[in-house]
Amino acid sequence: MAGSTFGTAFRVTTAGESHGPGNVVIVDGCPPGIPLTEEDLQVDLDRRRPGQSKIVTQRKESDRAEILSGVFEGKTTGTPIAVLVRNEDQKSRDYADIAEKYRPGHADYTFDAKFGVRDYRGGGRSSARETVARTAAGAIAKKLIAQAFGGEVVGYVTAVGDVIAKVPSDVTLAQVETLPSGEPNVVRCPDVEAAARMVELIEKVRKDQDSIGGVAEIVARGVPAGLGEPVFDKLKSDLAKALFSLPAVVGVEYGAGFSLATMRGSEANDVFVANDGVVTTETNRHGGMLGGISSGMPIVLRAAVKPTSSLPREQRTITKDLEATTIRTRGRHDPCLLPRFVPMAEAMVAITIADHWLRQRAR
Amino acid sequence: MAGSTFGTAFRVTTAGESHGPGNVVIVDGCPPGIPLTEEDLQVDLDRRRPGQSKIVTQRKESDRAEILSGVFEGKTTGTPIAVLVRNEDQKSRDYADIAEKYRPGHADYTFDAKFGVRDYRGGGRSSARETVARTAAGAIAKKLIAQAFGGEVVGYVTAVGDVIAKVPSDVTLAQVETLPSGEPNVVRCPDVEAAARMVELIEKVRKDQDSIGGVAEIVARGVPAGLGEPVFDKLKSDLAKALFSLPAVVGVEYGAGFSLATMRGSEANDVFVANDGVVTTETNRHGGMLGGISSGMPIVLRAAVKPTSSLPREQRTITKDLEATTIRTRGRHDPCLLPRFVPMAEAMVAITIADHWLRQRAR
Amino acid sequence: MAGSTFGTAFRVTTAGESHGPGNVVIVDGCPPGIPLTEEDLQVDLDRRRPGQSKIVTQRKESDRAEILSGVFEGKTTGTPIAVLVRNEDQKSRDYADIAEKYRPGHADYTFDAKFGVRDYRGGGRSSARETVARTAAGAIAKKLIAQAFGGEVVGYVTAVGDVIAKVPSDVTLAQVETLPSGEPNVVRCPDVEAAARMVELIEKVRKDQDSIGGVAEIVARGVPAGLGEPVFDKLKSDLAKALFSLPAVVGVEYGAGFSLATMRGSEANDVFVANDGVVTTETNRHGGMLGGISSGMPIVLRAAVKPTSSLPREQRTITKDLEATTIRTRGRHDPCLLPRFVPMAEAMVAITIADHWLRQRAR
Amino acid sequence: MAGSTFGTAFRVTTAGESHGPGNVVIVDGCPPGIPLTEEDLQVDLDRRRPGQSKIVTQRKESDRAEILSGVFEGKTTGTPIAVLVRNEDQKSRDYADIAEKYRPGHADYTFDAKFGVRDYRGGGRSSARETVARTAAGAIAKKLIAQAFGGEVVGYVTAVGDVIAKVPSDVTLAQVETLPSGEPNVVRCPDVEAAARMVELIEKVRKDQDSIGGVAEIVARGVPAGLGEPVFDKLKSDLAKALFSLPAVVGVEYGAGFSLATMRGSEANDVFVANDGVVTTETNRHGGMLGGISSGMPIVLRAAVKPTSSLPREQRTITKDLEATTIRTRGRHDPCLLPRFVPMAEAMVAITIADHWLRQRAR
Repeated sequence: MAGSTFGTAFRVTTAGESHGPGNVVIVDGCPPGIPLTEEDLQVDLDRRRPGQSKIVTQRKESDRAEILSGVFEGKTTGTPIAVLVRNEDQKSRDYADIAEKYRPGHADYTFDAKFGVRDYRGGGRSSARETVARTAAGAIAKKLIAQAFGGEVVGYVTAVGDVIAKVPSDVTLAQVETLPSGEPNVVRCPDVEAAARMVELIEKVRKDQDSIGGVAEIVARGVPAGLGEPVFDKLKSDLAKALFSLPAVVGVEYGAGFSLATMRGSEANDVFVANDGVVTTETNRHGGMLGGISSGMPIVLRAAVKPTSSLPREQRTITKDLEATTIRTRGRHDPCLLPRFVPMAEAMVAITIADHWLRQRAR
Repeated sequence: MAGSTFGTAFRVTTAGESHGPGNVVIVDGCPPGIPLTEEDLQVDLDRRRPGQSKIVTQRKESDRAEILSGVFEGKTTGTPIAVLVRNEDQKSRDYADIAEKYRPGHADYTFDAKFGVRDYRGGGRSSARETVARTAAGAIAKKLIAQAFGGEVVGYVTAVGDVIAKVPSDVTLAQVETLPSGEPNVVRCPDVEAAARMVELIEKVRKDQDSIGGVAEIVARGVPAGLGEPVFDKLKSDLAKALFSLPAVVGVEYGAGFSLATMRGSEANDVFVANDGVVTTETNRHGGMLGGISSGMPIVLRAAVKPTSSLPREQRTITKDLEATTIRTRGRHDPCLLPRFVPMAEAMVAITIADHWLRQRAR
Repeated sequence: MAGSTFGTAFRVTTAGESHGPGNVVIVDGCPPGIPLTEEDLQVDLDRRRPGQSKIVTQRKESDRAEILSGVFEGKTTGTPIAVLVRNEDQKSRDYADIAEKYRPGHADYTFDAKFGVRDYRGGGRSSARETVARTAAGAIAKKLIAQAFGGEVVGYVTAVGDVIAKVPSDVTLAQVETLPSGEPNVVRCPDVEAAARMVELIEKVRKDQDSIGGVAEIVARGVPAGLGEPVFDKLKSDLAKALFSLPAVVGVEYGAGFSLATMRGSEANDVFVANDGVVTTETNRHGGMLGGISSGMPIVLRAAVKPTSSLPREQRTITKDLEATTIRTRGRHDPCLLPRFVPMAEAMVAITIADHWLRQRAR
Repeated sequence: MAGSTFGTAFRVTTAGESHGPGNVVIVDGCPPGIPLTEEDLQVDLDRRRPGQSKIVTQRKESDRAEILSGVFEGKTTGTPIAVLVRNEDQKSRDYADIAEKYRPGHADYTFDAKFGVRDYRGGGRSSARETVARTAAGAIAKKLIAQAFGGEVVGYVTAVGDVIAKVPSDVTLAQVETLPSGEPNVVRCPDVEAAARMVELIEKVRKDQDSIGGVAEIVARGVPAGLGEPVFDKLKSDLAKALFSLPAVVGVEYGAGFSLATMRGSEANDVFVANDGVVTTETNRHGGMLGGISSGMPIVLRAAVKPTSSLPREQRTITKDLEATTIRTRGRHDPCLLPRFVPMAEAMVAITIADHWLRQRAR
């Protein structure tokens, strides 16, 4: 059944797959009067783009966004904004293999089980290619929350394999994107020392024809208290759904997360204090949400990303006819999704916050 | 804005709070012909009930479910099923305190920020009391999935504080509920030795006027391959939303979860094999979902639960007027939510699977 | 599939049937701070109640509303409001007949075709009994729009059979409910002369063991310009859906309605004029909506209601086994639904306007 | 708030306006395996196209549909189908006028009241141009219902002004589209004699620089019994919403419609009879729906369409600054929308039936 729409008030609907003509997103519900150009979208599309550095997949896509509707004289009109990103690198290198065999860790088998047919030219709708549409929607959401309440969403990599970074909570987008040397921070980890080791690890993994997982953290700052609905549509629930809807995400936590499971209440609770007439907390183990509603403190989320499933090395599997076989992915190798995952995750967080901010206006 | 409905095809809408007349749930979309009695609901309501053992909160509620509609001659009719559970123990012990002060870790402040007003007789809509309605809905979902495809959802506690249990994946509900001695397994951990230490820890924490967190694991067996939609409404996304919508949940993972972040693809991928003509995998690090769609393998989820926020010991906080103060919760003390969390979590998982099973029929 | 919820921001979900324990409605999304008591609901429930006069059905129901949640200290809290109305007159007089035969004009056959089973004790979910729940929700919506923007919804009967009334557009609720003599206006037609003839016609129809249709008009005043969404969720579309969702409605029009089909544009267009700095129109053939969005002029709708299908006289039909037979409804006879239809229709209009007013706040 | 999506299981989301780059539709939820080509869409786009005959508006649009996703090897895959139709004739002839003045009968004022800004290059999102996207979606829905259950939707004009046609209920698409002479039936009225008089009337109205309204009837045949949900999402409710969401629709009725208001129950009820083991009715005053659920009889709907608001003759109105003025639309003149309305209405009916057919599968 239909399942390609996210959000209630700020509604994002996507269409498109890896090897068709293109990917489209319709953002319905964006208020009028928000300045918006194709360049605004391009910034995040470029951060998500394949081929942006040596450590990511090398598919050749220019990923140019065309705004088809909803913008007039440089501002949103309140009507739906459609954005089209055409696919360019549609050559599929291993049609025959993907058509006949189930790639381990991939959705080939589950798509067959679900639909009975499958666009076997690539990952189709399960490909990370699909996230190009959401990333464009996320760029619109970022503009909205910046203009509406000065909100900001910043993501970064905190772990690749066993390399763990230390990142201060006030890290800036510039620190995520650029090294002190002025060179691009290709791994998007603002802990410079860890970043170097991450790059090293990814290079090694690539040479091994393997891939590696990791963790990204996303912080949303400036979010007003009161967003999120008490029961099912808690802000934490919708943020978790948003992040889990991204490919390869296998775990999500917020605030102190899983480490709270071993704490006592007296350690875990953050103490309320008043700061210049504003309610705040001394610590932020609650990650900016209490009862599933934003508290005004920074919202802090982490997503665990599994290693890319497609591998150039041989893996055991079966054919559609249930014969044992092996497969070796001949497409571009993506040793680590994390650097490109960061803008995707920021997009989903920004969309969710935009949605709940609009919902709260209808309180 | 409205946010008290979960699901698309199997739609669950709840109303009610801790100190009002009662809690209601409407389950809309349950197919006709499913045998259903009030006793079916009572089983899980009793597992969720306060006062069921010494290690949980002692609020006195008989939690009797009354079916108001949608059932005729012992079977569902296809029309909405409404269930009413009246509140009995409505005495609030600390009106004045909760009305004037923000309990740390609680939703008092965020509700005020959201609504401007608050039912200060208790947690109101943010209270775990609200889950009585979902648990009834979950019992209906369990009946549906059992009848429709022999599906089964079993939850259990795998960690309380630093006591970690080992639980085999084929554990039964009977093992969760009853010790080999025949006595009730009050902590709902099927690792008997760990269960004893958990009870000990909870007793100690209670004496310290404190609380403790933990982890619950939920397994759904017999779920057919093909459930879940490719992009936003992935089965993993909706399951995560479902679990995060429960009070105190601060992290969710499935399959090998966060541990996949440190693995290589060659280790992480589960190998497909054919078993008696059925596609299966040698291992289940993917927790029964690939590309967000069920694979036919058991679905395995874990939720991290923070320690209960309300404490009988004194905690620092502020008043609504931003004055520093202290608060000591005078209501019943709940040293560990985990034993009662298990049926709540099972309910949310069963509801989500029922919803996606119906959605897949409309493919 | 689920279909018992109406609205997006002001969401109304109902459950219940004619011969079960009761009917329930959950109103989710009503803002906090609206004064609300059970008496507020009772006014419209009494206007909808069977047995209120000699010309309507005589089922004995006191229709007492119990608010189960969402109200604290006499005001809404922003959380879902659940209302329960128990059924009392549950005796079904013709079980055997309804179970075995398809009543003409009724939903017996289509329910069987849909669900395979049917609660044959009465109309079940297709009974007008179900509207008791929506009428309670409508009373809440009326309170909201009155408090939010001074909005008011008034309905009345403009035709019963071939008796056509003339009703000025500024008619008051008092004129609808009470005759100049001070007696109740049992037919809810403010044209006193027509009202008398309508009553006469209904009495005659009842003696003939027959029923008669008619038309009701509903006016919403004080609705601000700008409500309704441009394309699918036009205000006119949602109002039409709202009215068609009521039993027996077979046609809906707004403004000059079907008579516009024979007009020329130069006659049909209403001329804009400025009135004390407010945009208004000289005439209101557009019924308060342009492009599906409210214009600030009164919203004027009409619904055609077919004659009640259940008749005490013998009618030809077939059994479930497709045998020709006859049926004579032995339950209470309802010669004309129109007087009781008025509050139902007002409720649906008020709910739709409340919903779109909240949606517009999230613009 | 967002309002550009229609349907639950077969979900149609549109974006685009009259003078932007193009119009897009995403159809989410179409099952896999339905044969679909761009030519399939083109048939209905050509029937809706401006400039197709002398009696409709002359805007120059080739209206070529490009399928961007969801189709592989000539069949749907089950993933969202995106269709793009670029705008070509984007020249707006009366920018200054539309920007400054409110066209009578148009949505200029209500858009300003709603959004505060407006794309004044034309009707923007309120333009009939937007229906190009839905018509493409309707073509997909028609393919689905034809393949799924042999369903067919045929529309035609039954009245233009006071010219009323007589159309037998088994009329074919060929009769609607082509005159016995083999020439195109430009007015889409299968009553040949009435059609000639309609064309004459429209020509006269055009010379008068005026416009004229009318009525279209839409019949859906082969729809299985059981579609539609009992309460809010009745099939009649959703069909009414669907038709009212089209521009210029001011009234909708089904079956005997408004004429039922003057009937008695004994006249109005259709008698059930068994026909070759199939439940049917002797007459079809119920228009194929009982209790809002399809009965298996043909579904028959009528929509009243008001005369086009834009007129080349001078009309009184006001400016945005509330000054009295006059306006004369300089764009292409559309003397009668009805011929082009037919495929739009068919599309909305087909989409609604497709949606409810899928919903019923999830029963």
